[in-house]
Amino acid sequence: MEVANVLHMTEGIGDCSYAKNSLFQQKVILMTKSITDEAISALYRSLSTGETICIAELGCSSGPNTFLPVSQLIQTIREECTSNGQQLPEFHVFLNDLPGNDFNTIFRLLPTFHEDLKKQNMRSGDGLLFDPPNCFVAGVAGSFYTRLFPSKKLHFVHSSYSLHWLSQVPDGIENNKGTIYAASTSPSSVLKAYSKQYERDFATFLKYRSEELVEGGRMVLTMPGRENEHHLSNVCRFMLEPLAIALKDLVTEGLIEEEKVNSFNFPLYCPSPAEIKYIVEKEGSFTIDLLKTLEHQMDFSCEGYNEAQSVRVVGQPLLVRHFGDDDKLMDVVFNKCSDIYANIMANEKNIFTNVIVSLIKRND
Amino acid sequence: MEVANVLHMTEGIGDCSYAKNSLFQQKVILMTKSITDEAISALYRSLSTGETICIAELGCSSGPNTFLPVSQLIQTIREECTSNGQQLPEFHVFLNDLPGNDFNTIFRLLPTFHEDLKKQNMRSGDGLLFDPPNCFVAGVAGSFYTRLFPSKKLHFVHSSYSLHWLSQVPDGIENNKGTIYAASTSPSSVLKAYSKQYERDFATFLKYRSEELVEGGRMVLTMPGRENEHHLSNVCRFMLEPLAIALKDLVTEGLIEEEKVNSFNFPLYCPSPAEIKYIVEKEGSFTIDLLKTLEHQMDFSCEGYNEAQSVRVVGQPLLVRHFGDDDKLMDVVFNKCSDIYANIMANEKNIFTNVIVSLIKRND
Repeated sequence: MEVANVLHMTEGIGDCSYAKNSLFQQKVILMTKSITDEAISALYRSLSTGETICIAELGCSSGPNTFLPVSQLIQTIREECTSNGQQLPEFHVFLNDLPGNDFNTIFRLLPTFHEDLKKQNMRSGDGLLFDPPNCFVAGVAGSFYTRLFPSKKLHFVHSSYSLHWLSQVPDGIENNKGTIYAASTSPSSVLKAYSKQYERDFATFLKYRSEELVEGGRMVLTMPGRENEHHLSNVCRFMLEPLAIALKDLVTEGLIEEEKVNSFNFPLYCPSPAEIKYIVEKEGSFTIDLLKTLEHQMDFSCEGYNEAQSVRVVGQPLLVRHFGDDDKLMDVVFNKCSDIYANIMANEKNIFTNVIVSLIKRND
Repeated sequence: MEVANVLHMTEGIGDCSYAKNSLFQQKVILMTKSITDEAISALYRSLSTGETICIAELGCSSGPNTFLPVSQLIQTIREECTSNGQQLPEFHVFLNDLPGNDFNTIFRLLPTFHEDLKKQNMRSGDGLLFDPPNCFVAGVAGSFYTRLFPSKKLHFVHSSYSLHWLSQVPDGIENNKGTIYAASTSPSSVLKAYSKQYERDFATFLKYRSEELVEGGRMVLTMPGRENEHHLSNVCRFMLEPLAIALKDLVTEGLIEEEKVNSFNFPLYCPSPAEIKYIVEKEGSFTIDLLKTLEHQMDFSCEGYNEAQSVRVVGQPLLVRHFGDDDKLMDVVFNKCSDIYANIMANEKNIFTNVIVSLIKRND
């Protein structure tokens, strides 16, 4: 299965859409803001005055989070400029996601983004009024495991909660029975196959971005991860275990075939900092400026968050592809998920581990 | 009315979509190919080797014509490179249209575009095999009567059959009764108001593009036009007169109010070469390399073309905005149009006048 052709968030702005179910991702973006700020500031100071800053947001999805990182980056550069008495440069912003992403919705949100930018930059602490930033936005459809931009074009790449999606379900994991991801019950050969697929994909990602970034260009990448190789990812487990249980239940109830569930796996992997360090060093185009894990707690019951709905948004296109386009079946699956989440939430601490890495493009 | 918020081609790839009704526009693109080729070749020879060529297609719509001009431009540069023994540069292509355009459809057509580029460039006359061109495509949503790109970013701008759309219906044309455009029956004050609105809009277009183009950058613009100031545009008349008649019929039949039709006008104007020359010289950022009219004949009955359908594709969003979202009413209007076209087609020569202008950005 070519993930790039199937994977996308549910379109539009309805109740089941990604736009309404992205609180989790928003928290992560806000939590990593100081690290992103530091990277873009360092980048800005390294550029010649007046240069247009080219920023790519990879895996931008289509919702309120689409514009959040870019908004923050521009605000940070505004502050740099103000404190140095410099004029704000122009920005060329590229919002990327897979071709199935709802770019029409993104483009219809553009006026709001520009309005917000204007308000945000109208007044600074010292009471000065600024011109609104000249920010030109373009949409780019394609997998970030391919080349997306011309050579030496980008200054800054940002990606949050996207790089855990693999380019494909790993080969040779037919023996991953009874679950649908790299779970604690998976055979070690399955864990290894997932890890190898991640290594291949992330190295490909680094190689292509290194071609697209200028020397000294920077990337800040955040993804759900795990403390070390002896742990499994709690984001992965939290997200996919209820779905795995729900599918097993449906087998018991005779609604789907066991063989069908056994052959279904998610193209999703949550790496450790050590794995990332190994791949970055082996690939060789980037130096690591910062690499760490960040924990992130969510009390879903208080925050009115519907986890099953959230998993449905990303999971349904993959399930439909494997199990067929059956609305009723999907309702049964995700209603079961809801019940399972209700139980898990009552019993577990919801602390999630994220890995963030800030990288600098080496000179050729 | 803000045209930028309403104007768009009907989405998707169904029978009523723009994608299926764009033969007219395709003919124009093919007819102007030699002029476009000459401009891109001259541009290419003026660039330093290895520079990425940035091309913007303004008013790209979403259908088979979206990629046609870009495809031709790349093929022409390939031929330049082959004859000079140079390596093909990288291309950064920006496809622009209003935010209501169906960019999702464009992005889903991208794999076919890349596949076609590959085939087209695999073999040249002398039997050599080439690598497929590195062409990176981005979508840009916004009115071309605003800034769309950073300063000095573009090398080449192409636009076909888009610049006849005005940024708004001209003010002060309440007396344009019984028709819906600058028609032979319109008062002279209405014709003047349309012409003035065009002048303002086209000058704005030139100003913004001159900021976005590099020095020596080029634009080739084609639009439906008219021989001189003493003629009215036959494209305009052919496109809108049947609709005007249909609306008047509906008034007679009591289905819509006369006042409602009187206050409805199309934001569309077809200029003469003299008008274009005047505006370009007055605005001052460009020199004219070439300016001419081209005639273009279509035998609609032979080519299986449904003109009423074609007008519906562009006209329905504007009509719905003014007359309300009434599917039945729209069916009645365009069925009437169909009948009127059938009669006009039987009696008229369908020769259309287009204006093409090739411009070079002056040094600052």
